[in-house]
Amino acid sequence: MANKPVTIEISARHVHLSAADLAHLFGEGYTLAFKRALGQPGQFLSEERLHVEGPKGAFDSVAILGPTRAFTQVELSLSDARVLGIDLPVRASGDVKGSAGIKLIGPKGALVLKEGAIAAKRHLHLSPADATRFLLRDRQTVSVRVDGPRALVFDEVLVRVSAAFHTVMHIDVDEANAAGLTGPTEANILL
Amino acid sequence: MANKPVTIEISARHVHLSAADLAHLFGEGYTLAFKRALGQPGQFLSEERLHVEGPKGAFDSVAILGPTRAFTQVELSLSDARVLGIDLPVRASGDVKGSAGIKLIGPKGALVLKEGAIAAKRHLHLSPADATRFLLRDRQTVSVRVDGPRALVFDEVLVRVSAAFHTVMHIDVDEANAAGLTGPTEANILL
Repeated sequence: MANKPVTIEISARHVHLSAADLAHLFGEGYTLAFKRALGQPGQFLSEERLHVEGPKGAFDSVAILGPTRAFTQVELSLSDARVLGIDLPVRASGDVKGSAGIKLIGPKGALVLKEGAIAAKRHLHLSPADATRFLLRDRQTVSVRVDGPRALVFDEVLVRVSAAFHTVMHIDVDEANAAGLTGPTEANILL
Repeated sequence: MANKPVTIEISARHVHLSAADLAHLFGEGYTLAFKRALGQPGQFLSEERLHVEGPKGAFDSVAILGPTRAFTQVELSLSDARVLGIDLPVRASGDVKGSAGIKLIGPKGALVLKEGAIAAKRHLHLSPADATRFLLRDRQTVSVRVDGPRALVFDEVLVRVSAAFHTVMHIDVDEANAAGLTGPTEANILL
């Protein structure tokens, strides 16, 4: 079997905002301040933070990723969902229809979202070159093996291929803890 | 391949106390009150709760399991460890040498443990009859597959065989979240 190495990165809880929601929470004409570039081209961690609230609990100081998107999406773990007291579905990014409601509180306003909060389905960003090299196609699912004392094989890893992507796999903090990962880790795609 | 079904149960954070530590925290001669039987014969959830504290955070009302044991052991998840601010090793139950320190606070006293807190290594309790049926032996590791939208294969599952056991696999809350499990779930041992 050919070796298909991939780096796994851990996504902590974060928010993507639409331009309209950014204006509502931070004020008309507000622009997110660049703090640090993220792995995917053009994506960045902003200086701004939000208060995210559910019926049972809340998180202060949740990261906002830029740039703004077509719609607001809040990515949390199932552990977070328990703290907040919400019923969080596992969804591919962008698939927010009928997902969990959540309250966002910024310095200039608050928003009660009827949907938009998800646990991100674990996924593998692939550049077209790596998709060709690994014989993988957009939207298929693969399995990825992690070694170590909490070794496991993640099945149901959603493959996303785009010229806008660097190749990297993303999991959430629960998944990282289950696999004993604390930072970027080399893993292997199985097929 | 023969079918080797097993039920996975989720272990939430809990404490096992030695008789001496029980006396220190709850008073001389104190006995844990039976609340509910657990899956393993003789083990029970007690009515009592403890405050568990680390340098950065704490949990109120942590479950105490009975009966008392030869030594105190605090089983937490890696998510819990982050809240508490402790560096928690993944260990087999009983292997507490050099594990994380933690503070326990009861109604009659407090204890600063230099070691005793672990993230339990995922494990499979097997009755001798099922060990024979599944061709498994004490202390080996196996892999166990969970289906569903967060399907995965847990490797490094420690097998424990004892006449004192009912057959069941135990994982912690992080592992349950990573696999999308919310309660007892049927899985399959691979070999």
